[in-house]
Amino acid sequence: DGGSYDVVHDASSPAAGDCCAQQSSARHNWEMNYQEAAIYLQEGENNDKFFTHPKNAKALAAYLFAHNHLFYLMELSTALLLLLLSLCEAPAVPMLRLGIFVHATLELFALIVVVFELSMKMRWLGFQTFIRHKRTMVKTCVLFVQFIEAIVVLVRQTSHVRITRALRCIFLVDCRYCGAVRRNLRQIFQSLPPFIDILLLLLFFMVIFAILGFYLFSPNHSDPYFNTLENSLVNLFVLLTTANFPDVMMPSYARNPWSCVFFIVYLSIELYFIMNLLLAVVFDTFNDIEKRKFKSLLLHKRSAIQHAYGLLVTKQRPSGISFKHFEGLLRFYKPRMCAKERYLTFKALNQSNTPLVSLKDFYNFYEVVGLKWKAKRNREHWFDDLPRTAFLIFKGINILVKSRVFQYTMYTVVAVNGIWILVETFMLQGGNFFSRNVPWSYIVFLTIYGVELLLKTTGLGPVEYLSSGWNLFDFSVTLFAFLGLMALAFDMEPFYFIVVLRPLQLLRLFKLKKRYRNVLDTMFELFPRMASLGLTLLIFYYCFAIVGMEFFAGVVYPNCCNTSTVADSFRWMNHTVGNKTVVEEGYYYLNNFDNILNSFVTLFELTVVNNWYIIMEGVTSQTTHWSRLYFMIFYIVTMVVMTIIVAFILDAFVFRMNYTRKNQDSEEDNGIVLEKEISKEEVIGVIELYKRTSAATETAQLQQIVLQMDKYGQMSTVFLGRRSRTKSDLSMKMYEEEIQ
Amino acid sequence: DGGSYDVVHDASSPAAGDCCAQQSSARHNWEMNYQEAAIYLQEGENNDKFFTHPKNAKALAAYLFAHNHLFYLMELSTALLLLLLSLCEAPAVPMLRLGIFVHATLELFALIVVVFELSMKMRWLGFQTFIRHKRTMVKTCVLFVQFIEAIVVLVRQTSHVRITRALRCIFLVDCRYCGAVRRNLRQIFQSLPPFIDILLLLLFFMVIFAILGFYLFSPNHSDPYFNTLENSLVNLFVLLTTANFPDVMMPSYARNPWSCVFFIVYLSIELYFIMNLLLAVVFDTFNDIEKRKFKSLLLHKRSAIQHAYGLLVTKQRPSGISFKHFEGLLRFYKPRMCAKERYLTFKALNQSNTPLVSLKDFYNFYEVVGLKWKAKRNREHWFDDLPRTAFLIFKGINILVKSRVFQYTMYTVVAVNGIWILVETFMLQGGNFFSRNVPWSYIVFLTIYGVELLLKTTGLGPVEYLSSGWNLFDFSVTLFAFLGLMALAFDMEPFYFIVVLRPLQLLRLFKLKKRYRNVLDTMFELFPRMASLGLTLLIFYYCFAIVGMEFFAGVVYPNCCNTSTVADSFRWMNHTVGNKTVVEEGYYYLNNFDNILNSFVTLFELTVVNNWYIIMEGVTSQTTHWSRLYFMIFYIVTMVVMTIIVAFILDAFVFRMNYTRKNQDSEEDNGIVLEKEISKEEVIGVIELYKRTSAATETAQLQQIVLQMDKYGQMSTVFLGRRSRTKSDLSMKMYEEEIQ
Repeated sequence: DGGSYDVVHDASSPAAGDCCAQQSSARHNWEMNYQEAAIYLQEGENNDKFFTHPKNAKALAAYLFAHNHLFYLMELSTALLLLLLSLCEAPAVPMLRLGIFVHATLELFALIVVVFELSMKMRWLGFQTFIRHKRTMVKTCVLFVQFIEAIVVLVRQTSHVRITRALRCIFLVDCRYCGAVRRNLRQIFQSLPPFIDILLLLLFFMVIFAILGFYLFSPNHSDPYFNTLENSLVNLFVLLTTANFPDVMMPSYARNPWSCVFFIVYLSIELYFIMNLLLAVVFDTFNDIEKRKFKSLLLHKRSAIQHAYGLLVTKQRPSGISFKHFEGLLRFYKPRMCAKERYLTFKALNQSNTPLVSLKDFYNFYEVVGLKWKAKRNREHWFDDLPRTAFLIFKGINILVKSRVFQYTMYTVVAVNGIWILVETFMLQGGNFFSRNVPWSYIVFLTIYGVELLLKTTGLGPVEYLSSGWNLFDFSVTLFAFLGLMALAFDMEPFYFIVVLRPLQLLRLFKLKKRYRNVLDTMFELFPRMASLGLTLLIFYYCFAIVGMEFFAGVVYPNCCNTSTVADSFRWMNHTVGNKTVVEEGYYYLNNFDNILNSFVTLFELTVVNNWYIIMEGVTSQTTHWSRLYFMIFYIVTMVVMTIIVAFILDAFVFRMNYTRKNQDSEEDNGIVLEKEISKEEVIGVIELYKRTSAATETAQLQQIVLQMDKYGQMSTVFLGRRSRTKSDLSMKMYEEEIQ
Repeated sequence: DGGSYDVVHDASSPAAGDCCAQQSSARHNWEMNYQEAAIYLQEGENNDKFFTHPKNAKALAAYLFAHNHLFYLMELSTALLLLLLSLCEAPAVPMLRLGIFVHATLELFALIVVVFELSMKMRWLGFQTFIRHKRTMVKTCVLFVQFIEAIVVLVRQTSHVRITRALRCIFLVDCRYCGAVRRNLRQIFQSLPPFIDILLLLLFFMVIFAILGFYLFSPNHSDPYFNTLENSLVNLFVLLTTANFPDVMMPSYARNPWSCVFFIVYLSIELYFIMNLLLAVVFDTFNDIEKRKFKSLLLHKRSAIQHAYGLLVTKQRPSGISFKHFEGLLRFYKPRMCAKERYLTFKALNQSNTPLVSLKDFYNFYEVVGLKWKAKRNREHWFDDLPRTAFLIFKGINILVKSRVFQYTMYTVVAVNGIWILVETFMLQGGNFFSRNVPWSYIVFLTIYGVELLLKTTGLGPVEYLSSGWNLFDFSVTLFAFLGLMALAFDMEPFYFIVVLRPLQLLRLFKLKKRYRNVLDTMFELFPRMASLGLTLLIFYYCFAIVGMEFFAGVVYPNCCNTSTVADSFRWMNHTVGNKTVVEEGYYYLNNFDNILNSFVTLFELTVVNNWYIIMEGVTSQTTHWSRLYFMIFYIVTMVVMTIIVAFILDAFVFRMNYTRKNQDSEEDNGIVLEKEISKEEVIGVIELYKRTSAATETAQLQQIVLQMDKYGQMSTVFLGRRSRTKSDLSMKMYEEEIQ
């Protein structure tokens, strides 16, 4: 990190740009400067370290080749192809089984694509930097191993034990689009040291209690849980997850009621104290890491901005960036941005009244560049331009729709509907739920919702109506309900499940209370991060699923474990009692590792923890004692990830609530809004500039604005820039005093 | 609260003391002022509201009668007697069963004592205030009901359904010694509103999924979990606790593998999201309440100090309190304090060099009055006064004991001992653990520990040795191990379990790492609060145990539930397979409500949650559907309490870690230390003062200090005041900027 700051000072005079700013006079070189500045800003945004910055023209070409969505998509699809291959390989999902030759060839193809990607990266980074970049090196090694194994499979025409397939997820993790997953993994690894410390404390007490339990309960021969030290340890481990409580206590409790003290003390210490301590420690570390991460990210962004600034100021005017150069930068940084937006961004950055943007103003670059600009409309409602009569009608609807009475009436209807559905479902005790005749209540309620939707759309205008998340939700639920009605009416079997979405409409009731709105808003803000955490968990699942399949595929089947203590759960039997056939089914043989989908379900069951020891004991009875290690390690790993998820939810909510508490008096806005006024002269000035560089489309865009102004006879137009608030904005406000 | 502040200003001039400061000149009235000031300070310390302050001499007498440890103990023992009665009443513990006449008489006796206590309180508070004091009023009502019921029992000579016995815990909660429990209960009730909000969200999703599950899975006739809406709801409630997973999924999963999506989505939303949200919301509320509580407590203490100050300043000298009056106050506030300590407290408070303590200084009263004062010793070691040879020997031991090498050697010994015990236990696979011959390894290790103990005691001196908590721990563990050896050597059966305490010595290894020391220190700091939370939980247990006993006593017995789905767990059968008798035992009939001890164990099992539905279904199959309500309500109540406990542990640890992070640079001290120097003249001055009031014991105490000074030829002595740091000290430092 320290290294990159040195570069800042080198680059801060325009002539010292790393590779391509040697002659700052020629137009071509300015283009190069723009491009390099845009790359710096991208690196700042993506938190790429500056030592991977392209150092010469050849590297730059490779960099540009490797940094666009087409390349990213290729990366992603290759990684996904490799991961999905395990659906078709050896213990395959029956329907998707492929021949060894086919899937090995596919794998080889995917690996060759990865080789191509890596060679592009090598070209861009150079050999030295390539070696230094840890993640890339790991990827290279894994690639090498996978390559050899794929060839071996092709040659031998048979799959060997390929646990290394678990490493395939590295290709996914390395994708540009999986930056959030990488961040999660980093955070998990950073939280590990304190976690392991407390885990050791946990295991220590477990060992002590195992010895104690062995001494106390092994004289009781009817107690199978503590007859050896190993059993004692395993059962206390399972007890930690509570999965065998109270069964583990029962034999000793039946003999001596006071033996329950042992278990109560054990659970109080381990489950209720140390496990919570674990959460506390992880939560605290997480909190601290979040804060530090935010600070270092901020510093990284700032130094990226400094680099870019150095490339954009001229020797003649070292105090700031002119619009010409700023526009050049944006052409590379955000090619899709139109001329109007470029100028507005420049104006929004420029706090002083000089024509130059100073470094201090330029620091706000990332906050401002994300704004979406729109001309502030003079009309209050969409129907303002309509003839008088129509206007009055729509105005009436508007007032009605916005009234309290209307809202509460709708809430009442929704509540009645909810109770209706509940009662209706309660009355149905047969099987003919989906009869041909549509119930009249359904039609009545749907009509009311339809009328409400119509009124709201006309009263508020479709754009304003759909701009609220809640309205969007109403709209889609009503639409689904309508689809359900169609399904019922036309008797389409596959659609019938839509009917059961009806109760979701009740969620609207939660709009009533502020806390729920807060909670649901936070939920939506958290969603991307939650999804990335879920993906991280899935990656762990994938690794364990592969290992599980290699070792345990096919070991569990009906009536497999008759010698074990959990035989009943794996039973499958057809009795004949009297003249009736009774099926006795334990079902647990379904929780197997026979293919990757089954493995995922089994792993989810292990994550939920309840009864996980039945699965463990079943597998153990068919293999060796050491299989338990797999299940225990999986438990600990999911415990880590789950604790982090809990810590994340805790942190996010507490942060958010503190934020709202701190800013209680400030208005409840939903997003960042900026207002900028542009006069006609300014636009004409900018048009002149574009004309000189002969940029036809930009000139045309701007001329349209001038025409618009002329039409309404205005001398200036006010534009509003909007974007949704991100965590980074909140953090900035919360840590205001701590940062500098 | 607002009212009490008004009083402050009224009382801030000395003549306006509420009841007894009418003539501030007479000595008798000064005594009354001292006493009232002491009462104010006590009220400030105990967070008693000022409207309960005694208003006249009669009330004061009652107040003094009701505020001493004898009275408190009577209160406590009466409450405990009432609670313990349920051990002997109707579904009694077999060994403790008492006749109805006996226990009803005992109850009546205890209730009469409570009546006496309440009448004393009425005398002190006056009828008006008595009525206004909510807790007392509730107690009175409960008392009334209990009284009538006890008489009814006596008259009818048979116990009726007495659910009201659950209210007996109010007598315990109202005890002076259970202030912490009251605080916990208040905090639980304050956290309830946000908790209930999220709980509703949880239940809402549960209902939606129940309807969905009913529609989806009830066509499958082999699925007993979703065949009616009621079953669907109950099973999803149980699924929320994960207790019936994956069983609840299996029938539908066997038919269609994709049905697992329903369960995965349900668990993800309910268990992994909303349940964590619940924790987050409670944690946040808890945090906020803690902060606000601290502030209001601080304000209350301040206003108590203002009241007291107003009673102690004279008209002649309104700028502060003289030592004479301060000493008078302390005589009432802390009668056990000796004259030396009183003067040192006065000096510690007095920041200015004037002979008066100003109000600003007096605000520190509570922080200073808890200090324990000791003369600073000039000797570094306890053996400094010994002859030269002995000194050198002890000095050598001292250096040895304090050396790193010695410490790490001991850690190694402990580690080896630990591994030894583990291996030894692992080798034992028979039943004769407690053979007559003592294992030699045990003697070797115990000898080493004994030598270490001896060296440390002689090297550091017994006082310094035992002043460290860790040494105390070492000492007691070694002592226990020695007792275990004795037990082994003399073959005393009841003591054999002490042997198994040996591994606890391994805890010493945790001294090595700073994080563990931190964690363990925090643990000790938390202990009182944890204990009070545990007691709060026990009070809830008591209520539920009584209700459970009244409704479910005797309903569960071996082979009771053969018609239910959980029949196997309640089975008790003697098969004869071949010529061997096989006992098939489900044991769950042991989890019953047959007496209060059994009920407590059953409730603990319900708290741990795993397999709780087996107990519920067993009871339900013997009673009615509505019994489920009892179990569900219990689950929700324990969820509240447990969430609060988790929130508390989280809060305390995060607070503590933030504190250490904030004060990383400041020295790692364990407690508050204050240094004060007293010169000989000062002491003589104080002696003069005491002589005038003819206080013989105080004069003698002070004269001894003068003698001591004369002996060592000093003109002054330095005293050190020490006390352990409390949460309030930490809070004060953490919220420094927020408070004013």
